[in-house]
Amino acid sequence: MSEPNFRKRLERCAALMRAKGLDALILTKPANMFYLTGDGRLCAYAFITSNGTVTMGVPKTDLEEVSQATGLQDVVGFDDEIGMIHSIAHCFDHSGIHQGSVGLEYAFLPQPRMGMLIHPHAKPKDVAATDCTSLMSELRMVKDDSEIACLQAAARVADIGMEAAVSAVAVGVTESQVAGAAEYAMRQAGATDFYRTYVATGPRTNIAHGVPTLRKLQNGDLVMIDLHPVANGYASDLCRTVCVGKPTSQQQTAYDLYLKAQQATVAKAKEGVEMKELEQTMHQILKDAGHGAHIFGPPIHGIGIEFEESPLPAGHAFFHGEKAPPPLPANVVIAIGNCGLYLGPWGVRVEDTVVVGHDGPHVLTRYPARLDVRTS
Amino acid sequence: MSEPNFRKRLERCAALMRAKGLDALILTKPANMFYLTGDGRLCAYAFITSNGTVTMGVPKTDLEEVSQATGLQDVVGFDDEIGMIHSIAHCFDHSGIHQGSVGLEYAFLPQPRMGMLIHPHAKPKDVAATDCTSLMSELRMVKDDSEIACLQAAARVADIGMEAAVSAVAVGVTESQVAGAAEYAMRQAGATDFYRTYVATGPRTNIAHGVPTLRKLQNGDLVMIDLHPVANGYASDLCRTVCVGKPTSQQQTAYDLYLKAQQATVAKAKEGVEMKELEQTMHQILKDAGHGAHIFGPPIHGIGIEFEESPLPAGHAFFHGEKAPPPLPANVVIAIGNCGLYLGPWGVRVEDTVVVGHDGPHVLTRYPARLDVRTS
Repeated sequence: MSEPNFRKRLERCAALMRAKGLDALILTKPANMFYLTGDGRLCAYAFITSNGTVTMGVPKTDLEEVSQATGLQDVVGFDDEIGMIHSIAHCFDHSGIHQGSVGLEYAFLPQPRMGMLIHPHAKPKDVAATDCTSLMSELRMVKDDSEIACLQAAARVADIGMEAAVSAVAVGVTESQVAGAAEYAMRQAGATDFYRTYVATGPRTNIAHGVPTLRKLQNGDLVMIDLHPVANGYASDLCRTVCVGKPTSQQQTAYDLYLKAQQATVAKAKEGVEMKELEQTMHQILKDAGHGAHIFGPPIHGIGIEFEESPLPAGHAFFHGEKAPPPLPANVVIAIGNCGLYLGPWGVRVEDTVVVGHDGPHVLTRYPARLDVRTS
Repeated sequence: MSEPNFRKRLERCAALMRAKGLDALILTKPANMFYLTGDGRLCAYAFITSNGTVTMGVPKTDLEEVSQATGLQDVVGFDDEIGMIHSIAHCFDHSGIHQGSVGLEYAFLPQPRMGMLIHPHAKPKDVAATDCTSLMSELRMVKDDSEIACLQAAARVADIGMEAAVSAVAVGVTESQVAGAAEYAMRQAGATDFYRTYVATGPRTNIAHGVPTLRKLQNGDLVMIDLHPVANGYASDLCRTVCVGKPTSQQQTAYDLYLKAQQATVAKAKEGVEMKELEQTMHQILKDAGHGAHIFGPPIHGIGIEFEESPLPAGHAFFHGEKAPPPLPANVVIAIGNCGLYLGPWGVRVEDTVVVGHDGPHVLTRYPARLDVRTS
């Protein structure tokens, strides 16, 4: 990413701040900091003004690396939490912001960390704190070309991870070992981090978030593998379900139905579509087949720097402190297929990362969706 | 873990709630739920009363697994956030709690998730919400025998991971690949999850939180490897620094000093010691050698279900919403060696997981601490 790109993002951010009457933002969420500066890390902050200036505060040990990564002049190092608080006070003072309002990430900050940022030694008392969650989401929702390229690269890494995971599927192997095979391959292929790798097998494919266990794969088990690598700072989301050995006809029928519903939804990922329409498309096909009670959670979510980010379906968005999404503009990137079909003894899920295009979907994850991979 | 063990923990929890005047707790932090019930997962809650009864609410897909894992009678499934809110209202109603106070995890919950739990459709209006962070920390601080056994197993997994990481160290390998080697080996050895794996090399060893990158190892680089596997639900923390090829005499001198400071601190991990004394021991040796300005962050933190938990040094504790720790009782488990020695061009760090014993330390992580491992 080039510096002019970040400059442009900061200008868009500042314009949005002015439109919303915000004088400053204090960001501590790594994804938000990364988007605006090129560096996002824990125990750090970015102080943004409505003029588009940015100061970063980081552990003093990280000063050199962050200065180089961002090219910013104003990076300050602190020793500890008290130093961080004082350096924030300095940002307000230096920017001449003694009243007005400052945006904070309410959907990210638990109370003690919020307390640091609004501490009387940090924030001037006449500056009111307000939530900037939806401002940052609005800013990040449509991906630019460099971001699409990063998401494409992350999807390629997920494909490689899935291939390794499926190759590792065999009787007697643990869920955690399958996850390990995927993660190892993804790091070899350029991943630098992961959101949680889910591998659930047998009866555990019926659960919504299958954190891997030491359960050993058995013949006839379904295996649900859900990968979220991070490469170049961007995530992808890829889920496949495969069978150890030959699937039963019930398993194959459920899988075919789910894949049909997912593909029908993917086909509608075109500029202007409502999240609600995507959700209803996926749900309706499953409901029409009598499975209204066998799905869980929204089937669609945004993806970018985070593996789950705005746009989220309206109901889910509310509880994440986000606004209901607009009709989707082109170059929003979403994961499609997250609701699963959970039948009790087992479940199936297929999920892909998809760019909402001008003329239709551009599917970034390419690993073939087949239940019957003849693993042994 | 046997059911009577959880029963005992719930009784201790209930006694503490009564002592603090709490009528109920709503826990959503997986670590806290796991401690009291044997199951902790995201998108779920445990409703505990001061009589020691517990109801869990989980995604409807997870009902069977959670019922089996916990042996609890009262596990309810919900469809979505609204279902979750209504099921919490039912817990209050069913327990006859219409006034009084409910404890919530303020140090864990950002505002929107807090908002769900105190939603007027969930919490009766005459029940006041209050912070239960330090109550849960107090409860979890001293580890019982079954927990020490789990921590020991997690430490063994970390040792195996470190061996794999150090074996992977070679010119041209990326930081992320070193991390991948460690993680793969740890999953093979029984890890089911990780807190973040840090691998920092060369100039990046000078930073506090070295998330791995695609930087390739060069001859003469230091390599800082910090592992946090989870096995049987418990974490361990092991950090080693090694050199690609032969270390310079400056590197060896800094390392020897750091190891001396860390070992002197480990030696003091005995029942009754103050966290402050441990911190001062470590800091003083580094300061006496002229390195007061080259350390960052507290050198000690608690470890258990979470890789970083209470007890924390007083200053740090405050900003994490925790109370200052008491003199350490026996069977508190701590990680020692986290402050690092950051000299600018590079840094060194050595960290171990240690049980505070009646007569002295019991070091759980056993991987040898040597800078010069003759990697190539």
